[in-house]
Order: sequence, then structure tokens, then C-alpha cells
Amino acid sequence: MNFRDRLRARWLRTESMLCVGLDPDEQRLPPHLAGRSDAIARFCIEIVDATAPWACAFKPQIAYFAAAGAEDQLEQVIAHIREHHSDIPVVLDAKRGDIGSTAALYAREAFERYGADAVTVNPYLGFDSIEPFLAWSQRGVILLCRTSNAGGTDLQGQRLADGEMVYERIARLAAGPWNTSGQLGLVVGATFPAELARVRELVGDLPLLVPGIGAQGGDVDATVAAGIAADGFGMMINSSRAILYAGSGEDFAIAAGAAARATLSAIRTARQRARPEAP
Amino acid sequence: MNFRDRLRARWLRTESMLCVGLDPDEQRLPPHLAGRSDAIARFCIEIVDATAPWACAFKPQIAYFAAAGAEDQLEQVIAHIREHHSDIPVVLDAKRGDIGSTAALYAREAFERYGADAVTVNPYLGFDSIEPFLAWSQRGVILLCRTSNAGGTDLQGQRLADGEMVYERIARLAAGPWNTSGQLGLVVGATFPAELARVRELVGDLPLLVPGIGAQGGDVDATVAAGIAADGFGMMINSSRAILYAGSGEDFAIAAGAAARATLSAIRTARQRARPEAP
Repeated sequence: MNFRDRLRARWLRTESMLCVGLDPDEQRLPPHLAGRSDAIARFCIEIVDATAPWACAFKPQIAYFAAAGAEDQLEQVIAHIREHHSDIPVVLDAKRGDIGSTAALYAREAFERYGADAVTVNPYLGFDSIEPFLAWSQRGVILLCRTSNAGGTDLQGQRLADGEMVYERIARLAAGPWNTSGQLGLVVGATFPAELARVRELVGDLPLLVPGIGAQGGDVDATVAAGIAADGFGMMINSSRAILYAGSGEDFAIAAGAAARATLSAIRTARQRARPEAP
Repeated sequence: MNFRDRLRARWLRTESMLCVGLDPDEQRLPPHLAGRSDAIARFCIEIVDATAPWACAFKPQIAYFAAAGAEDQLEQVIAHIREHHSDIPVVLDAKRGDIGSTAALYAREAFERYGADAVTVNPYLGFDSIEPFLAWSQRGVILLCRTSNAGGTDLQGQRLADGEMVYERIARLAAGPWNTSGQLGLVVGATFPAELARVRELVGDLPLLVPGIGAQGGDVDATVAAGIAADGFGMMINSSRAILYAGSGEDFAIAAGAAARATLSAIRTARQRARPEAP
């Protein structure tokens, strides 16, 4: 099954649009793990096992592993997900972007080395920088469109001469001419619900990865109302810190599971409100 | 000394604007190295030692190391440059781009873990995604502006509503309001000399990293004429494959040194032609 089918199967089976972000901050690991050489992997694996019932996807953020020189622990975490939660897709958040031959190597990094189902990619270099990722026909490629930070406006929120905003142009290309094989999705932040709604209008049922609820201030109700697809799904709504650091002691995983469950409950309630007729 | 001063000192001491790109393709390593567990590092270190006299900078491309799971070898290569060629700045070509706290981790990856003097960064997420890199006040941040691939036109070559092209907007921001502490530079491909000239017009003597000569087809004379700064320098003109794979046997490093010397000679000739009065 390809990424999009796997994600859709997970949406249908669990009614979950919650993506659990794995951003293992070394400064915030529970004290009982902090001394271990594999502390980052242990932390993530316990979070994964505790939150899996509520998750439609996991999203490890590679920068947390790279800054710590812990690529091997990222490999372990994803291998664990694939072995023990094989029906939950893994989106590697790497925001890579480079030209042809180098992009092909980043695709190998994400899909072969780490075994991710999908990877986030920056579209600034254009379609020929995205194509090498699409050569992996079973994998997904999630392009940055409108990110959740204020500075996203500097470029993404600029108007082009033909009247489109830059983020609208990316959305239109990703839903149309660039989406040659149905592998694309988009990153659209929860912090700008009007722009999220506009993207949904442009892209049909394209999968959206939506960061920015929780610590970044995005509102769950507004996010779901703005971003839900006609079929009642269509989103991976990401929460990282609010789940990972719900607890700080030996019971951190239990606290994370409870936080994931509560977040999913809020998403489900919002979904019922937005699409009362959805299954 | 900060990155810009180090680069300028190197330009003045060597009259070189040649940047040697380190893209160690596992498929193209000389047979006598291919079996070694540290083949990538050995290859790069021999290239570095052979080309150092002709280089104003080295530019390792992190994707080649990441796809091979060889981050430790990238650490070794940069450590070697810092120890044995301490006056040659290292630009880590990583094209990172993410929001605040994650960008701070990518900065740690580039500057602390790898010890690079500068890093390439993608500007699609705006200024607040660049600021965390600028917190490392002695290091340089080279923003993608107009890349050397044809697809760069998809976004970078689009016109904004106020008449500016997207790449012109990035150039103007990087030379002005974003360049709060003089740490910024730009990536502008050699394959579009007219746009390179336009960027130079907009940015004064900002350092430009210019890929695309050699294998990608950019012409040295046109590149130097278009991109040279008023002081007769201003560019790191990158060549990777044409130097790295000039030879394929045990004498690959000698061949690489000769190729670097010849490329620098072409750059110097073009520089004399473009700025006959330059020192």
C-alpha cells in the first residue's frame, strides 16, 4: 500500500486525525532516562507505544536527532514503529530541498536509510527538486506551503503578479501539475485558519499536515473546521510538545498517552461539529 | 575572526574565488578506497589536501554523508580542514530551513557538531527561521536565492505584485533588513548569468556562493563578469564533480589538484578581464 492509502486506512480504522510529533529535546527528558546512551530512542519508543492507539501518524523531527548526533537512535525509533505499529505511517520531518542528484540522496536518506513513509520537502527549488522523491512511488512527499510561524508571511504570504499568494501557488501546483502520481501532500499551519481553509478549497482532498496546535497556539476547533476534507478526514493534525512533555517523571508515557487521548477527543468533537454527517 | 572576515582574508591572500565542493559519491570512489569503512572521509581528506592551495573555501554537501549514514566521516573531514587548513572556511551545504526552536537545533548541528564556518539555509520560512542561525555571531548564513536548476524558475523566477521577482526580493532582504549583523550571503547559480548580475547589482559586496560551473554548464567568464564585486572578489565559485572525479585511479588526488588549479586559473583570467584594475 502506498502512503496515501495507508494514511486513509488509518483514518478510517481509528477516526483519528492526530499526528504525534517526536521532538525529543535532550533538556526535557525525564531524569530516569537522561543518563542512558540511548535515552532519546527510549523516550521516543515509550511515547510511541503509549500514544499509538490515538495516532494516525508519527512525525519524528530529524533536527532533534541530528543536533545530538543521534541518527542511529532515529533509525531505532522508526524501526520500532514499523515493527510494532506497522499500520501507522511515519512522516519524517526533514524539510529537505536540493537539486536533482542531491535531492535523490535526501530521498535515499528518508526512505531507504530511515524507512519513512513520507518526508517533508521545501518547494523553494521548484518541481525538479521534488521529482527525485517521487521516484519512490510508494512514499509520500509533503511540501511546505504555509508554515505556522509568523515569518512565513515574508515569502509565503506575498502576492504574485497574477494575484495569487505564493502559498496559494504552491497549493495549486501540488494539487495539480506537480501531483503526477498522487504522492503529494502539504504542510499548512494551524495558526492561520483562514489560509488553511483557502488551501483546502484549492486542493480537494489532498492530505494536509497541520502543525501549530497546542504550544504554538492554534485552536483545534478552528483548525478542523478550516482544514477538514469533504470525506471528513484529510488532515494529520500534529501535536508534539503538549504530548511529549505532558509529564516529566517516570510516568511520562502514561501522561503522554492521556494527553494524546484528550487531544484526539477534542479533534473528534470538532470533526463531528464540522461534518455531522461524517461516519 | 568571523566568517566574512575569514573569507575575505582568504580571497586576498590567495586571489582565489574557487570553492571546492565535497560531494563524495559512493559509486564513484576510486577502487583502492572503496573497500574501506572510512572510504568517504579518506577520499575527501585527500581531495582537501590536494586542492587546498587553490581553494578559497570548502563546501561539503551533507546529503552525500547522510544517505550513506556517514555523519561521523563528515565530522572527520571538517575536523581535518580545521586542523590542517585552518585559514580556509568551511561552508556546510545543508539547505536547512525550519521554524524557531527546530532551526536552533539545525544551527547547533552545523556550527557545534560539525564546526562549519557557514551553512546554507532555505529562506522559504522567512526571517524568523533564519534568526536562530544568526545567534552564532561568528558564523555565516548563506541563503538560497536563485538556484542553478531549471526548476528554480517555478518559484524563484516568479514576479511579485510589486514588480520584483521572488529571487530579487530575497536578495534585497538579505542585503538589507535581514542582514542585521553582516552574517548573510546568497546562493546564486552560475547557469543564469543575467540573474547573477542583477543580484550583484542589488546586494553590494555581499558574498555569493555560485554553484553551476563545470558539470552543470555554467560558463566561468560569464559567471565572473556577472558576479564579481566592486573590490574584485565577492564570490565562492563552486566546482564539485569536475574536480573530485578528474581522475579515477590511485592518483585521483593529483588529478583533482590539477583540475582545481586549472579552474582557478580560468577564474583568475576572467577576473583580470572583468576588473583589470583589481589587485
